[in-house]
Amino acid sequence: MNAREESRTPAAPAGHVSVVRLPHSWFILCASRELGRKPVARTLQGTPLVLFRDEAGKPAALLDRCPHRNVPLSLGQVRDGQLQCGYHGWKFDREGQCRAIPGFLGEPAAKARCAASYATREQDGFIWVYSTPGVEPTSEPFRFPLLDAADYTTVRRVLRAPGTLHAVLENTLDVPHTAYLHGGLFRTEEKRNDIDVVVRRSADRVEAEYVGEPRPTGLVGRVLAPGGGVVQHFDRFLLPSIAQVEYRIGEGSHILVTSAMTPLSDYDTQVYAVATFRLPLPRLLLRAVLPLAVPVALHIFRQDVRILEEQLKTIQRFGTETYASTEIDVLGPSILRLLRSAEREKTAPLDAVHETRLRMRT
Amino acid sequence: MNAREESRTPAAPAGHVSVVRLPHSWFILCASRELGRKPVARTLQGTPLVLFRDEAGKPAALLDRCPHRNVPLSLGQVRDGQLQCGYHGWKFDREGQCRAIPGFLGEPAAKARCAASYATREQDGFIWVYSTPGVEPTSEPFRFPLLDAADYTTVRRVLRAPGTLHAVLENTLDVPHTAYLHGGLFRTEEKRNDIDVVVRRSADRVEAEYVGEPRPTGLVGRVLAPGGGVVQHFDRFLLPSIAQVEYRIGEGSHILVTSAMTPLSDYDTQVYAVATFRLPLPRLLLRAVLPLAVPVALHIFRQDVRILEEQLKTIQRFGTETYASTEIDVLGPSILRLLRSAEREKTAPLDAVHETRLRMRT
Amino acid sequence: MNAREESRTPAAPAGHVSVVRLPHSWFILCASRELGRKPVARTLQGTPLVLFRDEAGKPAALLDRCPHRNVPLSLGQVRDGQLQCGYHGWKFDREGQCRAIPGFLGEPAAKARCAASYATREQDGFIWVYSTPGVEPTSEPFRFPLLDAADYTTVRRVLRAPGTLHAVLENTLDVPHTAYLHGGLFRTEEKRNDIDVVVRRSADRVEAEYVGEPRPTGLVGRVLAPGGGVVQHFDRFLLPSIAQVEYRIGEGSHILVTSAMTPLSDYDTQVYAVATFRLPLPRLLLRAVLPLAVPVALHIFRQDVRILEEQLKTIQRFGTETYASTEIDVLGPSILRLLRSAEREKTAPLDAVHETRLRMRT
Repeated sequence: MNAREESRTPAAPAGHVSVVRLPHSWFILCASRELGRKPVARTLQGTPLVLFRDEAGKPAALLDRCPHRNVPLSLGQVRDGQLQCGYHGWKFDREGQCRAIPGFLGEPAAKARCAASYATREQDGFIWVYSTPGVEPTSEPFRFPLLDAADYTTVRRVLRAPGTLHAVLENTLDVPHTAYLHGGLFRTEEKRNDIDVVVRRSADRVEAEYVGEPRPTGLVGRVLAPGGGVVQHFDRFLLPSIAQVEYRIGEGSHILVTSAMTPLSDYDTQVYAVATFRLPLPRLLLRAVLPLAVPVALHIFRQDVRILEEQLKTIQRFGTETYASTEIDVLGPSILRLLRSAEREKTAPLDAVHETRLRMRT
Repeated sequence: MNAREESRTPAAPAGHVSVVRLPHSWFILCASRELGRKPVARTLQGTPLVLFRDEAGKPAALLDRCPHRNVPLSLGQVRDGQLQCGYHGWKFDREGQCRAIPGFLGEPAAKARCAASYATREQDGFIWVYSTPGVEPTSEPFRFPLLDAADYTTVRRVLRAPGTLHAVLENTLDVPHTAYLHGGLFRTEEKRNDIDVVVRRSADRVEAEYVGEPRPTGLVGRVLAPGGGVVQHFDRFLLPSIAQVEYRIGEGSHILVTSAMTPLSDYDTQVYAVATFRLPLPRLLLRAVLPLAVPVALHIFRQDVRILEEQLKTIQRFGTETYASTEIDVLGPSILRLLRSAEREKTAPLDAVHETRLRMRT
Repeated sequence: MNAREESRTPAAPAGHVSVVRLPHSWFILCASRELGRKPVARTLQGTPLVLFRDEAGKPAALLDRCPHRNVPLSLGQVRDGQLQCGYHGWKFDREGQCRAIPGFLGEPAAKARCAASYATREQDGFIWVYSTPGVEPTSEPFRFPLLDAADYTTVRRVLRAPGTLHAVLENTLDVPHTAYLHGGLFRTEEKRNDIDVVVRRSADRVEAEYVGEPRPTGLVGRVLAPGGGVVQHFDRFLLPSIAQVEYRIGEGSHILVTSAMTPLSDYDTQVYAVATFRLPLPRLLLRAVLPLAVPVALHIFRQDVRILEEQLKTIQRFGTETYASTEIDVLGPSILRLLRSAEREKTAPLDAVHETRLRMRT
């Protein structure tokens, strides 16, 4: 068994059609500030990993199992930038190489005594880990846009959602359920409009543009679009696990909510949500409005979590998913197709864009 | 996969010899008064079902999984006699046909968007559901006898017993354990009599008649048989899941306890017990005696539940049942044979009755 | 299925390389004083057993499942030296033969109504049970040495450790982890010495002799070796499950800690620890010192339990063990080889002793 194989937990059972395990992909495993002097244990796609910082402060990620007696390395300590197991004191460097065996008079380094190691990046305040161990990455992690742009404000939240990566991605980018599940909160069943949706699919992403969406009314409308203006709304999925919702209203408002998802296991997804926005409000007023908006967003998220949980329970009870879609399930089926290609490492040419249109009542 | 197949949870593991799943059979899923304006979730033989009332108040039963995104329909609402899913608001009628998809401009009804539906009956104060979906029943539910007879009193209780349908049925109709497990309560080990048992087996039932059973003594005897008289005692099993104990003592007393069992899952059985009786007591005295008799019956039931639980744990720990029977295990083996025929949908001619005799000490 | 086969729970999953099930072996199931008038339920290698005393007070062990309806016999009562099931009152003698069936007019004894029975011994204050049912033992249980020797004191403790029999045995006899996991307690990382280890392997045991180990210093040294003297240290494993640590320091101190392990299940090991020792201390002073030493020993044991628990969790999460050993893992690999031979009932000639040497820093 080679290092790559042994690091994988047993495959998902057949019939769970939206379970994927993505190789050669970058995922956020923790925030930069969470990784200090102590090792941090995390799970990625069912595989236990341990994160620590080497002597230069650079993050390192190893399989969280001592090659000697299979105790989690995350129970140990970081000493001089190496990770020391808590059972017999074996020490490992950032490449997973064994550097010390207390009591042993021979050479500690040996192939059988290596812990599998994963490439890491520290970027945008997050620790990213590459999902295939022992290889040089062929890509770089996603960059969150506009983090440093003038006049933009950023709010970060880490959330946890039950369900496959696909189920959580689809839910995040799904429009029709908002009128029903979150009905009354930001869309209402009563006042509905027929609008056009333009869908653009390419090798590593799929995007839906909602054309002709009405401006929000009431207080929200007055805050976001005091001077009127056209509403532009995009929902995007980018491989391997980025869900992005973008709104522009007239000249003043630009809201971008990017969720980088981490599949902790087949049915447990961590969401690193980053909201970046520019609103036509004085900064002081914005500071006053924000504490009102965050609880509303979290309330919506909790409603989604409850539904995802019930969906997951039902799928596990029946042993399989059987989804019947209509064309207004705009992105879900395309996201699954992209995830499956990424799982099989088959990707289409990057430049081709396939565009389709449909109408829905929203 | 067709509607019938997909509604079944995975088959029971091999070795669990008394697990059966009965097709084309009626089971009680709830009492009439439990089904009001809200949908009710129930499980039948491992399959999650949702019950609701249509516009005419008639009960309907669907598979409890929205065909769209597999959320339980029981989390939704009943609107105008249709069941609406809580996630995207899809609506289903009593046949499981999709009648509305919010936001979708096309025709909602489509074969792939149907929820499997189950025939229902409302009878004797219970909601009965047919265990095979999408078909016209070939039989009608069991009718509880004497519910409306003059001078008869009825007491109902819903109980829950761990164990396979077979294990609970056998326990309910088993005589030998009463002298031991419930010893002192209504039979005693000391005063024992040899009696004859006549066993009659036919295509859909098996009955044991106990001949020569002595009259009860003490207070119970004075209440039930103040003028003496012959004791007649029958224990009956009727397919698919009815256990019936009948006593007649002289002219005055007639007691009939009918338990309609519902296999919620392979090892979890719901018991809808209906006791109907005529006693040689003035109605007022009967009212006074009843509150004394019910706790005794529940105490006996709890002793049985404890034993059934331990039996189940042992069977699951060993991974199989290995029962060694004697002829005084009068009904258990015949019940299992009938359940298995019903599972395979093989039944003998209805009119043949096979009669045997044995002696036991009771 | 014969008696031997049916008494085994399903085999351990593949990949768990150190799981063994040992036939024809003696294990302690309880202390003598734990087995009184009531039956005692115990598990041996995953098989539920019931212990009771016959009319002569001799311990008996049966499979803990009534052959009639598979209720645990341990829920019943001992009557006149026979074990009576709590459901229908069937009675079994010490051989597992059925001796009474209340209500049944025929002969109770029959092959199909036998409970599998296991040979027992009562020795050194423990009840020992032979792991293969229905056979005459070909060996006798281990005898704890020096229990009755003059000037020796004995302390007994029953402990429980998560992990396979092999993992717990290796941990008990492993020297290198003591310097690290229990560092500061009785060895320290700073003052280290290179010493010789002589390893002797034979058909039913493996022993490591540590040559040149320094005398303990500080208070412990003054208690154990007030007059100096050579340190002799042996660690031994004896089939099927005995771990023994022996220290002699000069003429005065002799400490022998014998742990008889019982594999309750594949990953749950009971430890019957017996410490027997002679120290160069007046008896009164010894009485004063002992209450200080026991908490230290239990503290060390708890540190080991925590590590064994994490090791077990990791192995179960990954679905397999992958151990990389060095030569200072002195006994572990040999113990596993002996356990596997015992599992396959293949043993080498008893008289051959294979001796090797190595050096380690301790």
